[in-house]
Amino acid sequence: MPTGLWLIGARGSVAVTSVLGMLALRAGLTAPAGCVTELPAFAGTGLPGWDDLVVGGHDTAALPLLKKAEALADAGVVPARLVAALGAELTTVDSEVRPAPQASDQAAAAAAIQADLADFARRHGLDRTIVVNVASTEPAAVPHPAHADLDALRAALRSAEPVLPPSALYAYAALSAGCPYVDFTPSTGTRLPALTQLAEYQGLPYAGHDGKTGETLLKSVLAPMFAMRNLTVRSWSGVNLLGGGDGANLADPATNAAKAASKQRVLSETLGYRPEGDCRIEYVEDLGDFKAAWDLVTFSGFLGTKMRMEFTWHGCDSALAAPLVLDLARITAAAHRSGLRGPLPELAFFFKDPLDPRGEVPHGLAAQWHALESLADRLREAEEAR
Amino acid sequence: MPTGLWLIGARGSVAVTSVLGMLALRAGLTAPAGCVTELPAFAGTGLPGWDDLVVGGHDTAALPLLKKAEALADAGVVPARLVAALGAELTTVDSEVRPAPQASDQAAAAAAIQADLADFARRHGLDRTIVVNVASTEPAAVPHPAHADLDALRAALRSAEPVLPPSALYAYAALSAGCPYVDFTPSTGTRLPALTQLAEYQGLPYAGHDGKTGETLLKSVLAPMFAMRNLTVRSWSGVNLLGGGDGANLADPATNAAKAASKQRVLSETLGYRPEGDCRIEYVEDLGDFKAAWDLVTFSGFLGTKMRMEFTWHGCDSALAAPLVLDLARITAAAHRSGLRGPLPELAFFFKDPLDPRGEVPHGLAAQWHALESLADRLREAEEAR
Amino acid sequence: MPTGLWLIGARGSVAVTSVLGMLALRAGLTAPAGCVTELPAFAGTGLPGWDDLVVGGHDTAALPLLKKAEALADAGVVPARLVAALGAELTTVDSEVRPAPQASDQAAAAAAIQADLADFARRHGLDRTIVVNVASTEPAAVPHPAHADLDALRAALRSAEPVLPPSALYAYAALSAGCPYVDFTPSTGTRLPALTQLAEYQGLPYAGHDGKTGETLLKSVLAPMFAMRNLTVRSWSGVNLLGGGDGANLADPATNAAKAASKQRVLSETLGYRPEGDCRIEYVEDLGDFKAAWDLVTFSGFLGTKMRMEFTWHGCDSALAAPLVLDLARITAAAHRSGLRGPLPELAFFFKDPLDPRGEVPHGLAAQWHALESLADRLREAEEAR
Amino acid sequence: MPTGLWLIGARGSVAVTSVLGMLALRAGLTAPAGCVTELPAFAGTGLPGWDDLVVGGHDTAALPLLKKAEALADAGVVPARLVAALGAELTTVDSEVRPAPQASDQAAAAAAIQADLADFARRHGLDRTIVVNVASTEPAAVPHPAHADLDALRAALRSAEPVLPPSALYAYAALSAGCPYVDFTPSTGTRLPALTQLAEYQGLPYAGHDGKTGETLLKSVLAPMFAMRNLTVRSWSGVNLLGGGDGANLADPATNAAKAASKQRVLSETLGYRPEGDCRIEYVEDLGDFKAAWDLVTFSGFLGTKMRMEFTWHGCDSALAAPLVLDLARITAAAHRSGLRGPLPELAFFFKDPLDPRGEVPHGLAAQWHALESLADRLREAEEAR
Ligand SMILES: NC(=O)c1ccc[n+]([C@@H]2O[C@H](COP(=O)([O-])OP(=O)(O)OC[C@H]3O[C@@H](n4cnc5c(N)ncnc54)[C@H](O)[C@@H]3O)[C@@H](O)[C@H]2O)c1
Ligand SMILES: NC(=O)c1ccc[n+]([C@@H]2O[C@H](COP(=O)([O-])OP(=O)(O)OC[C@H]3O[C@@H](n4cnc5c(N)ncnc54)[C@H](O)[C@@H]3O)[C@@H](O)[C@H]2O)c1
Ligand SMILES: NC(=O)c1ccc[n+]([C@@H]2O[C@H](COP(=O)([O-])OP(=O)(O)OC[C@H]3O[C@@H](n4cnc5c(N)ncnc54)[C@H](O)[C@@H]3O)[C@@H](O)[C@H]2O)c1
Ligand SMILES: NC(=O)c1ccc[n+]([C@@H]2O[C@H](COP(=O)([O-])OP(=O)(O)OC[C@H]3O[C@@H](n4cnc5c(N)ncnc54)[C@H](O)[C@@H]3O)[C@@H](O)[C@H]2O)c1
Ligand code: NA
Ligand code: NA
Repeated sequence: MPTGLWLIGARGSVAVTSVLGMLALRAGLTAPAGCVTELPAFAGTGLPGWDDLVVGGHDTAALPLLKKAEALADAGVVPARLVAALGAELTTVDSEVRPAPQASDQAAAAAAIQADLADFARRHGLDRTIVVNVASTEPAAVPHPAHADLDALRAALRSAEPVLPPSALYAYAALSAGCPYVDFTPSTGTRLPALTQLAEYQGLPYAGHDGKTGETLLKSVLAPMFAMRNLTVRSWSGVNLLGGGDGANLADPATNAAKAASKQRVLSETLGYRPEGDCRIEYVEDLGDFKAAWDLVTFSGFLGTKMRMEFTWHGCDSALAAPLVLDLARITAAAHRSGLRGPLPELAFFFKDPLDPRGEVPHGLAAQWHALESLADRLREAEEAR
Repeated sequence: MPTGLWLIGARGSVAVTSVLGMLALRAGLTAPAGCVTELPAFAGTGLPGWDDLVVGGHDTAALPLLKKAEALADAGVVPARLVAALGAELTTVDSEVRPAPQASDQAAAAAAIQADLADFARRHGLDRTIVVNVASTEPAAVPHPAHADLDALRAALRSAEPVLPPSALYAYAALSAGCPYVDFTPSTGTRLPALTQLAEYQGLPYAGHDGKTGETLLKSVLAPMFAMRNLTVRSWSGVNLLGGGDGANLADPATNAAKAASKQRVLSETLGYRPEGDCRIEYVEDLGDFKAAWDLVTFSGFLGTKMRMEFTWHGCDSALAAPLVLDLARITAAAHRSGLRGPLPELAFFFKDPLDPRGEVPHGLAAQWHALESLADRLREAEEAR
Repeated sequence: MPTGLWLIGARGSVAVTSVLGMLALRAGLTAPAGCVTELPAFAGTGLPGWDDLVVGGHDTAALPLLKKAEALADAGVVPARLVAALGAELTTVDSEVRPAPQASDQAAAAAAIQADLADFARRHGLDRTIVVNVASTEPAAVPHPAHADLDALRAALRSAEPVLPPSALYAYAALSAGCPYVDFTPSTGTRLPALTQLAEYQGLPYAGHDGKTGETLLKSVLAPMFAMRNLTVRSWSGVNLLGGGDGANLADPATNAAKAASKQRVLSETLGYRPEGDCRIEYVEDLGDFKAAWDLVTFSGFLGTKMRMEFTWHGCDSALAAPLVLDLARITAAAHRSGLRGPLPELAFFFKDPLDPRGEVPHGLAAQWHALESLADRLREAEEAR
Repeated sequence: MPTGLWLIGARGSVAVTSVLGMLALRAGLTAPAGCVTELPAFAGTGLPGWDDLVVGGHDTAALPLLKKAEALADAGVVPARLVAALGAELTTVDSEVRPAPQASDQAAAAAAIQADLADFARRHGLDRTIVVNVASTEPAAVPHPAHADLDALRAALRSAEPVLPPSALYAYAALSAGCPYVDFTPSTGTRLPALTQLAEYQGLPYAGHDGKTGETLLKSVLAPMFAMRNLTVRSWSGVNLLGGGDGANLADPATNAAKAASKQRVLSETLGYRPEGDCRIEYVEDLGDFKAAWDLVTFSGFLGTKMRMEFTWHGCDSALAAPLVLDLARITAAAHRSGLRGPLPELAFFFKDPLDPRGEVPHGLAAQWHALESLADRLREAEEAR
């Protein structure tokens, strides 16, 4: 079952940590900590194995994967011994990373991406390729009439002016090439009616948005706790301090806003109301990938008594994100293989701002886990029927 | 449906906060924040209403409930305006609180307790009385052969030497008097084979142990989060600083041990292994009921990267516990009414160290909520069939 | 030694807490916790006693002091029993609070303020009146050529367009009326060359800016600790969550910037370099006066090892500020009495952003305390020589 | 000015970090972060340079310094690149580490230690050797009559029963050999009248006890802050979680008690009263040298308003301690050279529980820094007079 994993942003921290980890797992050099698909719930679900995955991708940057991996080792994100042991394998993956295509118009750029994907699949004899966006977060997309309809979009792509932000252009190309698309970022990705039509038309599954790795993960278990206990959350305020490439990018106010919004949704969804307070992202270069997030929750209980809780999360963002990228690729591959199509709301467990076309996706983590288990069951049945 | 709520430790902080709150709810002076039984899940389950509850109890202390309520108001635990408004009602409840019986032997003491319960039920024409233990935590019970068998216990109770710790003696008397028994404390209560036999024989439901209000509540959502994400918890260490009557009592090393043990179980049960670290309780008089609990969790993720989270919980213990006492009384009353008997593991949601006779009770809060909802469904069916 | 204390913003939280506290101290109803001038270092320095102080002020708001004090008691900022006991005295002070004068031009407004001050002094037979600004923080002042010179300013005040922000207009009027002026806020106050000239000309002492009560206070002891240990502070990031009148006002970005800047100066001054990181203020209504400030400090030590510390400050802003307002009034009164004139950099201990005309004011708290003790010694000598 | 630095516990974490750091400083491979003696205050004070120091020591363990340094690098305490670069130099130091002497009685053991010191000095042509105890913390010493008097002690050392704990035996031997002695641990060391007599008799300076690196360091700046602001500290409770050799040793209740006591003294000394609360040490192996200390301080201010602050210190103990060991050795060497004798209370800046024979040592860090600066001034004068 040779399966392609095509990473948009393949030279970034999350991508390189994912690749290094996959290589280490394949070589038996590490345990699969952090990989949800290695839990018993996924036994027998027909996921591609570590040996089945072939990795390639696009990036605008040129730094070789090995250099990036060494930088990640210096920063304490990944163990230096793994980078030392897997240099050759990293370089092999590096040879499959293509520059982001430059073209006269976006139709041509999309065609170039499709050609890269087709060439990759052909050379490796792949059954399927899952495209996962782990590129830098974009600012919110500028609305355009052509976003509403696939035919209009196709026409507009041929004009000189770009109509799609990069994440959506990659999604367009991936879906056109018959590849399921997963958006690990808060960028636009498939979130345009024209692209939903395209996925539908192509019969492809897709998933997103924005990997859930830190503060939002905690919110997704703590907010339901307050709700189940009928405690009134009065305010929930948070600050995320982070450095690294992602941090630098999020320091930009427009991008920050996109990300911050996707982080507060879990509160209103699980509590049934929106408590006071905001969630901020600040760039602190010194922290690198080792972010610190602090949240203060004020709540009141019986007879109105006011109480507080606060937490600090000292997490390594790339180390938390990377196994989820592999999980998403494996599950989406199995979903595709078993014929699932359209949005995969059962993957809400992995996302801050899950795709939820029918407004029925739960936001509490336990309920999301439950939904994920159901998906695993469906995959297992399909596998057994095979 | 006049229902008795008989509180062992009726003059303590938890008890008086519960009583004041119930009176305030009945009078429409407060909202039912913190009351789980007021969530939609419990609609139509035949719970006694606030007007149905009649409160009495035992205590070794003599301080009138009104005085205690005033002290709680001074300490910021309950609003002074409620105490001012409900003084007469508190005094009425006060008249139903009996001293802990003194007798020549424990058989006689049990008989006196039973007589108090019978008199209470008769005078108020009660359908049933739920006995809830909110007395001071006892040290672990001294083992005795008569604990193993009901007949042996009955004989031994007539000897001069006490064989049961107070919580178990109250449980013995309550069950003998046909009253369901709920243990909100970590004390022995019904946890002796002889008492299990008695409950069985009497066909009564019972529940426990140790109300889950702070650090353990948080553990019951955070530990499953680590498990679902396949993150390895390396250590989990906590310290609880608290004053108040309960704090003073828990400062005693023997009692402390009983409580601390019941607080760590959730970790091994939800993670599948016991991480390093302990949980300590320290008495800090100045904090009163407004405890501060700090926990540090170290964990490792993908490729072994080490991370940390910490939280501080600034909670008011009595304000968190009191609504649960009312919830437990109401649900146990409905359970009794609908003919349920034996241990009620579905109430694990409320307890640090839930009764779990068949070892199948979940320890994650979401799963416990699920079990509680099932119980609510069963009660609703029984109610609809009535 | 009857001494006037004239509060700009006399109906605000800080002002009313100060007044209530002064009345309680006078009546022997409270201990002088938080009052620096009650420490042994100030014995014999000729400060006005609690009985000597007579309070009046200006405010744009109309809410009576008693009402405000009741609201502060409801919010837990001040004890209800003190408000109950001192209602009459509060009402007496209330009768000395004047509306902020409305006039055709700022010269006329200044004259009206001076008239209020003169009338107050005359009616109470005051030796001197200290004017303390505790009004809402203003946005940074719009520069104007007339700020540079007293004569130009006097001329400009008579034009239709206002040239001074309110804090500076009050300072102008106070100094013109022969009253020492203390700025407890980050607003402009005396910080214009024209007003420095005026103070000089009038031979009056003045002090400011911005009372140091929370995060900056902590920075002023922690940053020197890192410096004395030769540890390199890499980043220092903070967030202040607060409600109340001050919080609402600071939510305005322009005001926020003024305040935040004055909060970071201590770092560069005590460390000798400016570490990465910012300090943010966020409005969270629910917190009221009970702010929560969280700071994360990353630092490196021997051989570059990276470490972290974080703190959370759960402080009541008005309770921390009020005794300092009284301290400043008392010390400034004694300074005036002993003939001191010009800026009082020895009061840096009290301020986030101390006046520092010759660039020699220390920013570490211990050194500031040392400077304050020297001032106390000078006052004591003057007193003994009297 | 060849100067010996003789480390008791030379194979431990603090010792090896100190040695590696000294070698790295000598080789110009690192900056002197964390070294107090590299601050401008110590310019021209005649301290031995990094090239002047020759290191040896005693240890009961056999693990080579290079292996220990590699383990410290794996644990992230020291940079691997320094260990790689300085292997040969570490091995050279290793050849100067002697096993703790075994002998028939303690007099013989002391003689063996003296012989080791003499041999070391002779072979390296040392001007003087400073003995610094960085061995594992001992339980409190068992009192013995011979501790009171030097002659009695000398006699008792020849009996079969040991009369001195190891730290005091090393101190006895060091002083007898004419070496100044510094105790970086909370162990007994010189704290016996007989040893004070010996130091006096030998005309030697000595210093201690217990390096101040984490929670106590913070207390020494925060407690004075509360005192200077006349805020009442109601409780101060702390927990220290740490692994590593020191942590394992401190897990022993007797040792823990010795350490915990020395950590609380700063509060009563700087506040003038002893607030409620304790300070605990817990062993958490996973944390290794990267301890986490959490403190909660409750305090009240104006009108009794209750407030809280809490901090978490994520520090690397050995990285904080090691530069201080070098500082102490250098300053004590210069003190000896300039003829100082007896206890050195001016080194209180470095210690949790400073020697304070005349009860005049300040406990606030700023005042201690002031005292240290005075000592530096004295050393500079001596140096200039040379
Ligand atoms: N790490 C986490 O915990 C986490 C969680 C949720 C979402 N994310 C998202 O994952 C993404 C990656 O994060 P990261 O830390 O790896 O960031 P990064 O800055 O290290 O990597 C991003 C990579 O994307 C590349 N890139 C930028 N624009 C591109 C384009 N148009 N085409 C192709 N490549 C492009 C960059 O050159 C870079 O190599 C971000 O969007 C982030 O918000 C991360
Ligand atoms: N507050 C919480 O969050 C919480 C959570 C779980 C469990 N609990 C448990 O609830 C119990 C009550 O806590 P509290 O804070 O109200 O304590 P408390 O000290 O205020 O009250 C205990 C009461 O029990 C009474 N008592 C003691 N021995 C008795 C006896 N033999 N018979 C009758 N009465 C007796 C005491 O006189 C006192 O009035 C404790 O066991 C505590 O551990 C409390
Ligand atoms: N509380 C603290 O810890 C602290 C510390 C440092 C500085 N400060 C400063 O003290 C000031 C007061 O804080 P607060 O919490 O009492 O705020 P507040 O909003 O409760 O009170 C401010 C008062 O000023 C009045 N006011 C506004 N404009 C005025 C004008 N032009 N003339 C006269 N009165 C005017 C308002 O009506 C209000 O009554 C703020 O500037 C704040 O930044 C407070
Ligand atoms: N690291 C800090 O921040 C800090 C601060 C203050 C005090 N201290 C103290 O410094 C000491 C060393 O700490 P560490 O972390 O290096 O501990 P460690 O356990 O790593 O090292 C202690 C060393 O002492 C040796 N030792 C034990 N008994 C001995 C004896 N009788 N003779 C000779 N050697 C002996 C051990 O073999 C070991 O090599 C401890 O007493 C600790 O309490 C450390
Ligand atoms: Na905290
Ligand atoms: Na914290």
